[in-house]
Amino acid sequence: MSTLPPPVHSWVEVPPGSDFTLHNFPLGIARLAGGPPGAVSILGDWIISLDALQELRYLDSLHLPPGIFAQPQLNALLALGAGPGRALRERLQALFSAEGTGALRNYPDSQARILHPAAQAELLMPVSVRNYTDFYASEHHAANVGAMFRGREQALLPNWKHLPVGYHGRASSICVSGTPVRRPLGQMKPGDGPPVFGPSQRLDFELEVAAVIGEGNALGTRIPAGEAERHIAGFLLFNDWSARDIQQWEYQPLGPFLGKNFGSTVSPWIVSPDALAPFRIPGPAQEPAVLPYLHTEGLSHYDLHLEVDLVTAEGVAQVLSRSSLRHLYWSFAQQIAHHTVNGCNLEPGDLLASGTISGPEPESFGSMLEIAWRGERPVLLPDGSSRSFVEDGDTIILRGWGERDGLRVGFGAARAQVLPALS
Amino acid sequence: MSTLPPPVHSWVEVPPGSDFTLHNFPLGIARLAGGPPGAVSILGDWIISLDALQELRYLDSLHLPPGIFAQPQLNALLALGAGPGRALRERLQALFSAEGTGALRNYPDSQARILHPAAQAELLMPVSVRNYTDFYASEHHAANVGAMFRGREQALLPNWKHLPVGYHGRASSICVSGTPVRRPLGQMKPGDGPPVFGPSQRLDFELEVAAVIGEGNALGTRIPAGEAERHIAGFLLFNDWSARDIQQWEYQPLGPFLGKNFGSTVSPWIVSPDALAPFRIPGPAQEPAVLPYLHTEGLSHYDLHLEVDLVTAEGVAQVLSRSSLRHLYWSFAQQIAHHTVNGCNLEPGDLLASGTISGPEPESFGSMLEIAWRGERPVLLPDGSSRSFVEDGDTIILRGWGERDGLRVGFGAARAQVLPALS
Repeated sequence: MSTLPPPVHSWVEVPPGSDFTLHNFPLGIARLAGGPPGAVSILGDWIISLDALQELRYLDSLHLPPGIFAQPQLNALLALGAGPGRALRERLQALFSAEGTGALRNYPDSQARILHPAAQAELLMPVSVRNYTDFYASEHHAANVGAMFRGREQALLPNWKHLPVGYHGRASSICVSGTPVRRPLGQMKPGDGPPVFGPSQRLDFELEVAAVIGEGNALGTRIPAGEAERHIAGFLLFNDWSARDIQQWEYQPLGPFLGKNFGSTVSPWIVSPDALAPFRIPGPAQEPAVLPYLHTEGLSHYDLHLEVDLVTAEGVAQVLSRSSLRHLYWSFAQQIAHHTVNGCNLEPGDLLASGTISGPEPESFGSMLEIAWRGERPVLLPDGSSRSFVEDGDTIILRGWGERDGLRVGFGAARAQVLPALS
Repeated sequence: MSTLPPPVHSWVEVPPGSDFTLHNFPLGIARLAGGPPGAVSILGDWIISLDALQELRYLDSLHLPPGIFAQPQLNALLALGAGPGRALRERLQALFSAEGTGALRNYPDSQARILHPAAQAELLMPVSVRNYTDFYASEHHAANVGAMFRGREQALLPNWKHLPVGYHGRASSICVSGTPVRRPLGQMKPGDGPPVFGPSQRLDFELEVAAVIGEGNALGTRIPAGEAERHIAGFLLFNDWSARDIQQWEYQPLGPFLGKNFGSTVSPWIVSPDALAPFRIPGPAQEPAVLPYLHTEGLSHYDLHLEVDLVTAEGVAQVLSRSSLRHLYWSFAQQIAHHTVNGCNLEPGDLLASGTISGPEPESFGSMLEIAWRGERPVLLPDGSSRSFVEDGDTIILRGWGERDGLRVGFGAARAQVLPALS
């Protein structure tokens, strides 16, 4: 792991266990005090209006375009590339650290315009996503699903260790944490009978992390693997809701479609690669060796705790999974290099999701399909009920954070409740 | 077929064989005389500035929002729904018909601002596409490809006649006619050897037609099949460029990805359902019967001529295919009903492409893969050379039109030249 940054403290109270420490300063979009949506960051339980900071001239040294934070999405800011994002985070650390400048600390009038209680803010989609790609980058997940459908011997298909398998998902139905998801209707084929139509009986979540693209590449050009991380503005949690019965009947030969595109849930904060740097680790040995265009040097992965919680309509809570972002086979840099090697253009705000992240043990599996193993091992809840898939009224909450020697940086949560299907 | 409209003539000269007759009035985006991009239509060889028409108050009766045509994409106009589009086309017919109002015919000063020679206009992408879906709706195409890879007995997979199979494509790399496409690099696996990296050796076109969505639907709601056509703003030609060797190695189990997303080519004009109404026909009998949510009444299909031309770098020309839009099994209304039955939201400007349109005879196949049957039947060109796939320097041109008793309505062309791969 890389060395830890020196300990720092803020003059703003940061509750113990907060994801939003002085080391984090993620970016998001919020509506504050009934105003228009704008760019924000967060420290402890306080939302920071970046537009107010800019208006009050606390960010002059960054030379950012006027009004860059007074927009309903972060795309224009992300398009500026990694440099301005890094400078902004460093400036926020200076403004809010107890050891830093007193420029804001000593001015309560400015603070009143800049700081807003998180409980009163409405967090919105941080980016307008034009293109969303879902990868399949966790070996344990791919092997689990493959074993269920093809047997252990052929669990991984022949291409899986040669390239990061991925496909295009639906951008329009990606929603921010807190937006309910409605159980989909669709066509399914139970057993040997004819196809039937009705509500999915096998609604599932998928625990994923997505990279958010900052600066893109022009159509016809490629991003080399060694330069790919420069194009990542940050990361967020991604729940790729899946209807397994719809997916199972539809997916041959062109891949998932209606089994996925009824909705996805993202966490509201984009956490920067700089903030996550203390949690970098080497990736797994890749054997067979990858082709040169997928080769990278150095620390390629992150060790971040990931957790999935279920809360029923009656308020019964259960941890469903404890996993880690370390359980990816393919790194995000490899995903980007592969995605663009044919000249495909990435754009600011694009999401590249990892695919379901499963560890080696059942406790670390990233979907109900795997946790309850196609319904063969239902999860028992504290009230005596059980789950093989997600039921109406259930809320699924993804969480993710890095923690090391007292330093914590996290994503917050990606939370969504399941509503019953419309008739 | 529906009855023909009464014959009409324009006071603007429309050359014989023009796709852009007084019955058409498609919508596009163009840069005229070096000005900013704006909404246009076309009649014969004259581009019509819709913004100038509105500014000169020729469209007051339509009560459209001011500046609606002074935008770089048509999305906001399409979002208004079918009514305004219909009223606009009828108003253009009245303004430009020899029998109609003289309001424009008698005012050369207005004409000079409104009419621009097509040869001098730069046509741009007509819509900003956020989501592009590709279907697989032609039975002959699905059966041809299935027969090549699985044999004649299992050519169609079990789900094919029960639902319109589709998948999400890449929106960012869709380009307007005239934009070159660069041969993609990628990972392939020739024979039994290890995977290799290099330029695709099996570059192909796909002859498709795409529906452009006008008014969308809210996430969580569905568009019934019987109402689906109201959500179609129009149609355009779509070339879904494909690298067969990259696709073949990558596509299991999640579908096509880098074999497709390096580029697609669309024709610049959105032709309205009203303009194509004279060419409506019944669809094929669907057996087994579809589930009720896919059932529609009345004329579901269109009889439009489709053609693919090849022009080599040396200027040698060859017609590769003569097909028809009649060769779809699944109608666009069925595609929309299926796409939204799970609550997936369509948005203005979304493209729903048909998938490759192949007829029953080799002369009507819609891709080189089928025409040259995996290279087993190369196409001979007039200069003695041959083609199994598309070569560097080749230009592929899709054309499409309806023609009946002297009435013609067409799309123009979707044209792109292949550039050599970058090293």
